[in-house]
Amino acid sequence: MRIGIDAMGGDQAPAEVVKGAVAARELLTSGDKIVLVGIESAIADCLSASDGPTDHIEIRHTDQMLDMDEPPVESLRNKPRCSIAVMAEMHRDGEIDACISAGNTGACVAAAQMRLRRLRGVHRPGIAVITPTPAGPVAVCDVGANVNCRPAHLYQYGIMASVYVQAIGGIKEPRVGLLSIGEEAAKGNALVRETRALLQTDKNLHFVGNVEGRDLFSGNCDVMVCEGFVGNVVLKLIEGMAISVGEAIIRELLGVLPENAPSIQRAARQLMGKYDYNEYGGAPLLGVAGISIICHGASSYRGIMNAVRVAKEFANFQVNQKIVELVNEGQEMPATDRSNNA
Amino acid sequence: MRIGIDAMGGDQAPAEVVKGAVAARELLTSGDKIVLVGIESAIADCLSASDGPTDHIEIRHTDQMLDMDEPPVESLRNKPRCSIAVMAEMHRDGEIDACISAGNTGACVAAAQMRLRRLRGVHRPGIAVITPTPAGPVAVCDVGANVNCRPAHLYQYGIMASVYVQAIGGIKEPRVGLLSIGEEAAKGNALVRETRALLQTDKNLHFVGNVEGRDLFSGNCDVMVCEGFVGNVVLKLIEGMAISVGEAIIRELLGVLPENAPSIQRAARQLMGKYDYNEYGGAPLLGVAGISIICHGASSYRGIMNAVRVAKEFANFQVNQKIVELVNEGQEMPATDRSNNA
Repeated sequence: MRIGIDAMGGDQAPAEVVKGAVAARELLTSGDKIVLVGIESAIADCLSASDGPTDHIEIRHTDQMLDMDEPPVESLRNKPRCSIAVMAEMHRDGEIDACISAGNTGACVAAAQMRLRRLRGVHRPGIAVITPTPAGPVAVCDVGANVNCRPAHLYQYGIMASVYVQAIGGIKEPRVGLLSIGEEAAKGNALVRETRALLQTDKNLHFVGNVEGRDLFSGNCDVMVCEGFVGNVVLKLIEGMAISVGEAIIRELLGVLPENAPSIQRAARQLMGKYDYNEYGGAPLLGVAGISIICHGASSYRGIMNAVRVAKEFANFQVNQKIVELVNEGQEMPATDRSNNA
Repeated sequence: MRIGIDAMGGDQAPAEVVKGAVAARELLTSGDKIVLVGIESAIADCLSASDGPTDHIEIRHTDQMLDMDEPPVESLRNKPRCSIAVMAEMHRDGEIDACISAGNTGACVAAAQMRLRRLRGVHRPGIAVITPTPAGPVAVCDVGANVNCRPAHLYQYGIMASVYVQAIGGIKEPRVGLLSIGEEAAKGNALVRETRALLQTDKNLHFVGNVEGRDLFSGNCDVMVCEGFVGNVVLKLIEGMAISVGEAIIRELLGVLPENAPSIQRAARQLMGKYDYNEYGGAPLLGVAGISIICHGASSYRGIMNAVRVAKEFANFQVNQKIVELVNEGQEMPATDRSNNA
């Protein structure tokens, strides 16, 4: 398997990205290669500063880069040789089997949609993020690829995220919850009510009904389906709150137990490590005809390394093949073709 | 001022509600009364068990109650003598000047909309919840009254919640943020982009632009405007997460410092107290022609007592008069009449 990594994407690129690519060597099997895409001289500098073997790494030079906050579609048009665009084209042309980037998320989504296209029968790709919680990990899908969701899109997020959780989490029968503002079927908005009707008739899904914001921490579902705007708000809220509440608790404890400061800080670090997004190594864009893993912009080398692990598991479990089977099950070809344009 | 309280609403009703009504005596000024609405015998039992003076309390008997999860509109139709409906009618008829309930939120919203109607020029009422965070309180509006928001509704939430925060928080020039999935103007969905255009042209508002989920904890806004579905998800997520993360940190610390268990638990209790919704005493339904304060279903007597404080401040600051002025500023009457039907 050949895994492309955007060497120029992320707050700590290229140094941490290259470090992650070097460290990922231990995850590779015979014949696997990592292709770092970006400015060759910068990558080469990082590689020569690294202390491990680099015989698993190739470089593909590009001379354009995107900033984190550039408007995605325009930027891809104006900078056709940026690392994200080049990597998506390499994937399309079969030069690599997966893309990993900690760069501009919108550009990753746009590049994958434009270059890789969608899996047969999939209406819209969605990003699935594994959210670590004290009650266990929950895959939230979508977290921002699609802010104009229709019921059919959300329904497919339930299918696709279930397959992903089976692949990555080893959960045989993932429990799927639909994020709403009350457990009762009548609550929520029209999008939720119509999505619920679709989810509950699918025999292949273990749909547990509507769930609420608090259920992300109650351990009653493995997959939480939601519209991309809501999912993105949820994701960023959790990130902001974990840091804020954690710091407040530490401050309060240091006030009461100043003599135990080292132990308190150690316990806090251990705990925060359990909820570190770097452990989960990026989120796949589910539904595209390829493997596109999007990492947190602040990813450390461990985040990049774990994204390589996710890409390998994604391929080994044949996530895309299973998604195509489930999404098209019981559908005649004409219906699939129609729905592809929905 | 005469303040109606739904004695039958809430997980701990009527006992905690009546206890809160008795304790609220210290917040009242000369001539103020509290009218407990509900089953007279149950209220009387709680009053005779109470240990403070009750000369500020009157009872209005009703013989119907709503469950927390009954569908609001149907229930109000089927149980026209339930405490929530009776209280709204008393408010409409001038028998009381405010309604407080820890019961079925949807029924409180529906009863207020049907019996009290909207303030002149207001399109849709919205619930504003003060969310305590380590960086300071933030008023989130709407948190579930309106799941079919248009830009004009969200814009008015910004105006109304600003007035409310001035009244309750004493903040002279509240900073208003629009919840989105990126700070850039182009990000978000169509609803957010159109709302932003309205918010940024209003000279009376201190609009700070789009904010993200994490900004609830960054202290950069006093008011966060969002659509009711998103706001409700946010609210419940925070509640679930505060408990979950707090418990996880305590567990971790008890493992490291078992000998300090009492201090750790004391510090945790102190901290959780700072973020206790009971301190904020319920959330007003902004935009109705009256005062409707909706409390958390699990409110303790302190939650009820603080709701009485909120109702008093709401009236003293003349929140509704100020909302009407700002919402209709620069508008001719015909435009206002039109917008009232939007």
